[in-house]
Amino acid sequence: MGNTTGWLIFSLICGLGSLGLGFYLFYWVTKQDDGTDRSREVARWIHEGSQAYLKKLYTALIIVAAIMAVFLWIVYSIEHGRGIETAICYIIGAICSAAAGYMGMEIAVRANVRSAVAAQTNLNKSFNVAFRGGAVMGFAVVGIATIGMSIIYMITEDAQLVLAYSLGASSFALLAKAGGGIYTKTADIAADLVGKVEVGIPEDDPRNPAVVADNVGDNVGDVAGMGGDIFDSYVAASVAAMLLGAAMRNPFYTTLPLLLCGLGIVASIIGSYFVKVEEGGKPSRALNLGTILTCAVFAVLMAIAILLIPNIANGYIWAIVVGTAVGVVIGQTTEFFTSDEFSPVKLTAEYSKSGPAVTIIAGISYGLVSIVPSIVGIVVAMVVAFFATGGYTDFDAGIYGVGIASVGMLAVSGMIVSADAYGPIVDNARGIAEMSSMDQEVIDRCDVLDSAGNTAKAITKGFSIAAAALTVLALFAAFISEISVAMKGGSFSISDLSIVDPLILAGLFIGGICPPLFSALLMLSVTQGAFKMIEEIRAQFRAEPGILEGTVKPDYNRCIGLAAQGALTSLIWPAIIAIVLPLVVGFVLGPTGLTGFLGGAIIVGVIFALFMSNSGGLWDNAKKYIETGECGGKGSEAHKAGVIGDTVGDPFKDTAGPSINTLITVMSLVASTFAPIIANFNLPMLLK
Amino acid sequence: MGNTTGWLIFSLICGLGSLGLGFYLFYWVTKQDDGTDRSREVARWIHEGSQAYLKKLYTALIIVAAIMAVFLWIVYSIEHGRGIETAICYIIGAICSAAAGYMGMEIAVRANVRSAVAAQTNLNKSFNVAFRGGAVMGFAVVGIATIGMSIIYMITEDAQLVLAYSLGASSFALLAKAGGGIYTKTADIAADLVGKVEVGIPEDDPRNPAVVADNVGDNVGDVAGMGGDIFDSYVAASVAAMLLGAAMRNPFYTTLPLLLCGLGIVASIIGSYFVKVEEGGKPSRALNLGTILTCAVFAVLMAIAILLIPNIANGYIWAIVVGTAVGVVIGQTTEFFTSDEFSPVKLTAEYSKSGPAVTIIAGISYGLVSIVPSIVGIVVAMVVAFFATGGYTDFDAGIYGVGIASVGMLAVSGMIVSADAYGPIVDNARGIAEMSSMDQEVIDRCDVLDSAGNTAKAITKGFSIAAAALTVLALFAAFISEISVAMKGGSFSISDLSIVDPLILAGLFIGGICPPLFSALLMLSVTQGAFKMIEEIRAQFRAEPGILEGTVKPDYNRCIGLAAQGALTSLIWPAIIAIVLPLVVGFVLGPTGLTGFLGGAIIVGVIFALFMSNSGGLWDNAKKYIETGECGGKGSEAHKAGVIGDTVGDPFKDTAGPSINTLITVMSLVASTFAPIIANFNLPMLLK
Repeated sequence: MGNTTGWLIFSLICGLGSLGLGFYLFYWVTKQDDGTDRSREVARWIHEGSQAYLKKLYTALIIVAAIMAVFLWIVYSIEHGRGIETAICYIIGAICSAAAGYMGMEIAVRANVRSAVAAQTNLNKSFNVAFRGGAVMGFAVVGIATIGMSIIYMITEDAQLVLAYSLGASSFALLAKAGGGIYTKTADIAADLVGKVEVGIPEDDPRNPAVVADNVGDNVGDVAGMGGDIFDSYVAASVAAMLLGAAMRNPFYTTLPLLLCGLGIVASIIGSYFVKVEEGGKPSRALNLGTILTCAVFAVLMAIAILLIPNIANGYIWAIVVGTAVGVVIGQTTEFFTSDEFSPVKLTAEYSKSGPAVTIIAGISYGLVSIVPSIVGIVVAMVVAFFATGGYTDFDAGIYGVGIASVGMLAVSGMIVSADAYGPIVDNARGIAEMSSMDQEVIDRCDVLDSAGNTAKAITKGFSIAAAALTVLALFAAFISEISVAMKGGSFSISDLSIVDPLILAGLFIGGICPPLFSALLMLSVTQGAFKMIEEIRAQFRAEPGILEGTVKPDYNRCIGLAAQGALTSLIWPAIIAIVLPLVVGFVLGPTGLTGFLGGAIIVGVIFALFMSNSGGLWDNAKKYIETGECGGKGSEAHKAGVIGDTVGDPFKDTAGPSINTLITVMSLVASTFAPIIANFNLPMLLK
Repeated sequence: MGNTTGWLIFSLICGLGSLGLGFYLFYWVTKQDDGTDRSREVARWIHEGSQAYLKKLYTALIIVAAIMAVFLWIVYSIEHGRGIETAICYIIGAICSAAAGYMGMEIAVRANVRSAVAAQTNLNKSFNVAFRGGAVMGFAVVGIATIGMSIIYMITEDAQLVLAYSLGASSFALLAKAGGGIYTKTADIAADLVGKVEVGIPEDDPRNPAVVADNVGDNVGDVAGMGGDIFDSYVAASVAAMLLGAAMRNPFYTTLPLLLCGLGIVASIIGSYFVKVEEGGKPSRALNLGTILTCAVFAVLMAIAILLIPNIANGYIWAIVVGTAVGVVIGQTTEFFTSDEFSPVKLTAEYSKSGPAVTIIAGISYGLVSIVPSIVGIVVAMVVAFFATGGYTDFDAGIYGVGIASVGMLAVSGMIVSADAYGPIVDNARGIAEMSSMDQEVIDRCDVLDSAGNTAKAITKGFSIAAAALTVLALFAAFISEISVAMKGGSFSISDLSIVDPLILAGLFIGGICPPLFSALLMLSVTQGAFKMIEEIRAQFRAEPGILEGTVKPDYNRCIGLAAQGALTSLIWPAIIAIVLPLVVGFVLGPTGLTGFLGGAIIVGVIFALFMSNSGGLWDNAKKYIETGECGGKGSEAHKAGVIGDTVGDPFKDTAGPSINTLITVMSLVASTFAPIIANFNLPMLLK
């Protein structure tokens, strides 16, 4: 076990195995029955809509990636060397994550109809199709990511180039996650406000011109976006730990993250094998069981490996175990604030009787309170990982411990993504069942599967929040280590970064602005996009009365085009905040200011991400709780207030909140990638 | 000019002069006509209601102050010495700020009715009564504060004891500001939801049982609360600079803040003399002119003084001038986001046509964007103050420059508070005019005066935000300097506080939680309080139908009692966050963790304070804009949405937002006061 080349070959084989499994499941799903002409037609609309969006998304990616690649090439060639290699690894990263997202989308739009058709037989079969569809994405993401990292590091033995690969992946994640978030909520809000509220037709009614855009939105936001996001975190966590390991000048520490990725893949394959539902069983139990089983198997494999490797201190086992335990606890507390079984959701529903203003105030307040346990959990994980592995006596080892804890948590992403991607597939399946007029019994089964997806999300969400927070902290440390290495003359050290230094404070404030500003821009894009689409829907109803009578098919493509166009053009400013602003701050305020900037963005970013996701989830479930007949039930004043809360929560939880994770990851990666340049070329230095 | 005792005597004389002027204006206002029996009766209700609240507030203050005083006495006696002196100075601070708040309340409840009566004659006279009423408060606050600081420092020559005085003042500010904020919005929301929405009677209608509580609320929130808040900031800024000066071991630097307070009083007296309105003139112009004139006079006096004093570097002139300029600029940009002349308010009103959910999303988004210029301004003021006075070559002098910039900005508080306290007086005057059935012409005049108060707030608010941010930054530096001095063995220095230290990061995260949690608790208190009061109002209407017919006087006192009780009992947890949590963090995570904690609370606190205040102001004005007939006008769907936005904004802008300033000041003061204790008694040290 003392040979790092052996580790790399192992992780490469695991990656290839994972991708192979993904392809097999893809083949298996497509062989299932896709039903009648009607269901096939509905699925085709969604499929075509998704492809139209992907085309625009990939065009945007090509533009961003081309600019970045040229910039990296020039800057690195002049200042640091390896310009062409850096640019190539960056492009490979972008292509790999785009490929994983593509595979996820292609299977999601096939699995949805097949899951709906299978629901005509029984629950078990339908669940199987949906979960395996999700697993295609799960195993494609971790497989492709691991293959890319292993090969690059095998060939170059340079963690800096893996960093460029990671930056490429995060460029895609930013566009896919934020763009997908805007797309899905633009379509959702517009479809609901005109369809349900104005003309009073049910959700998923084919007469609504925005209904296909709405279903496409579930795929582009929750499948491609989420896949890109986890790909990004997965690679970023690994590379942050690799860089910290490289700074310790220990090849074992540098390669350990890739070994853990390999072990995580093995654990995910084993865990996912046990995800099965008997007829009448609980799908949510199956998903949670799979996740927890995967974690347990991984913990055992990881502990055995670290115990067997003489060069790795045993303290890292604790770092990973505590990190994973904290992830589960965060999931549970998140559930307390967002599930209708507990008082926050119940009280918000109760308060809704006094009108929407009180619903909003209560939802925002509970959302703000909900960040407390999660952040305390993250702090505990960080402090334990630090002190269990090195502490102040071996500072570098301690910081590496924080990094390895996040790698450990993300190593099981294969299973996490599978359970997550299951959600939008069954959501779509329900839509297809409704639109192709299947029996009520089938729709009910789809509802059961759908609600399981929401429940399973609690744990997976807790995981991804905790992992992302630890990842950016590790990236933050990696950035500082990069800067220290790059400063010529060695005049810069960690002790120069005092929090009372006005440049650090200036950076903290300016970095702290970014997450609120970024989320505001995304939410305003949703508002403006929904506005335009509402007018389009009204115009179609006016121009062709046959649409509402159900005799004329509405023009779905116009709505799809509007949403895609709006989502991607409004990404320009958010992308500038994420990619250009760190470079500007680095140049103007120097490495010191940039350090503060990253710190501020991370602290405020984690707070806003948690607040917005949880408030949104709470409003969603408060509305659903009222719809079960509580507090006056459907149609009551409380219900109207609940619907308004839910609509406010939509861009909170599906656009702004989850995109902030990507924002802070991208910022940290940009800072780390350009650290060698900024260290030697900045205004404070030029003014000296 | 080279004698610090002379400076102290000068500032003491200025303080006495200011207080004397306050008493004279008090006498002048009470001599004005208070009108008919009816207007006197209405004013008496408000007066009695205010006193009932004050009684409860002072009881709460006595409890908190007694516990704190005993704690300070014991802890200081054991660990640091001067226990009894510290406790006494703390109590003096609490009494002084409570006295200033009391004087402000007593005059506000007299000036309101007299201003309404004077409005029957002409605008000019009415304005005069209201402004002089506000000036009583303005000059009482700065007078009492300066007298207290000067005397304590004259007698003891120990800035640490002035710090205890400041902590006493901030204990009152916390209760008065947060409690008043909960009180005023509980009454406001309940009065509106039942009165205007349910039974359809106008605002300020005497048939509404909550109408007096609502008017009392304006006084307790905007007068006593605001007075306590500015008293707190004023003293905290001075003492932070004094501590930083003391750390430089330079008596001139230690005493300069008090000299600036004296000069600021002189400037405020001159500036306020020019606040006059001709018949037909613009009251808002008069208020702004007074503020800007005061700043100009102060700048000249301050520059002359610093140029004449050989022991003070001239760079401090720039620190103060830039700070003041930034304050004005922040006021202007705040106006851009909250005035109906610019696009954010107009677009929010426009979006309101699509329903309340979009109103909320747009208001939150613009509120989040609005923090950008203010924070950039604060950063610019800080960086300029630092580099103009010392920079990295003389770090201590540079940090002192940041402190002195905040003192310079707050030195003109006499005028700022006068213009601010004018607002609630004319707001109340309008209510009294309506309740005592004065002519429409009189009510219209009161409306003109009222809207001037809102406009003038833009500049004063910009000032107080920028000044508070710089003050907490100076306090932050003062805390670190206190800690460094107190650490036995001198093993602790600024360079130990690296931002990548996991204990600093842990502190940053936990500190960052506090402002969101604190504001959530305050908002939930408003929600719960309003809920109870709504039931009380409904019960009164049910029990006595004569109330709505106008034949039976409702029981105002029950609503007043409910609001007061609810506001003060729900302060327990917020007070624990502000006062106890910093001590717990200091003990568990040590001085390092506490430093991060303060940093996190300050960064996130400034962001949330700006966001919540500005979103609230924006919704308020969007509603008013629609009421002028735009976007459908009164009664339209857009108006209904606007009203909901305004109701959500109420606790944002009047409860949570402005209380956060007080929160972070109190936290910083608690940390600084207990720094000598925490430095030598904490868990990381005990574990070593």
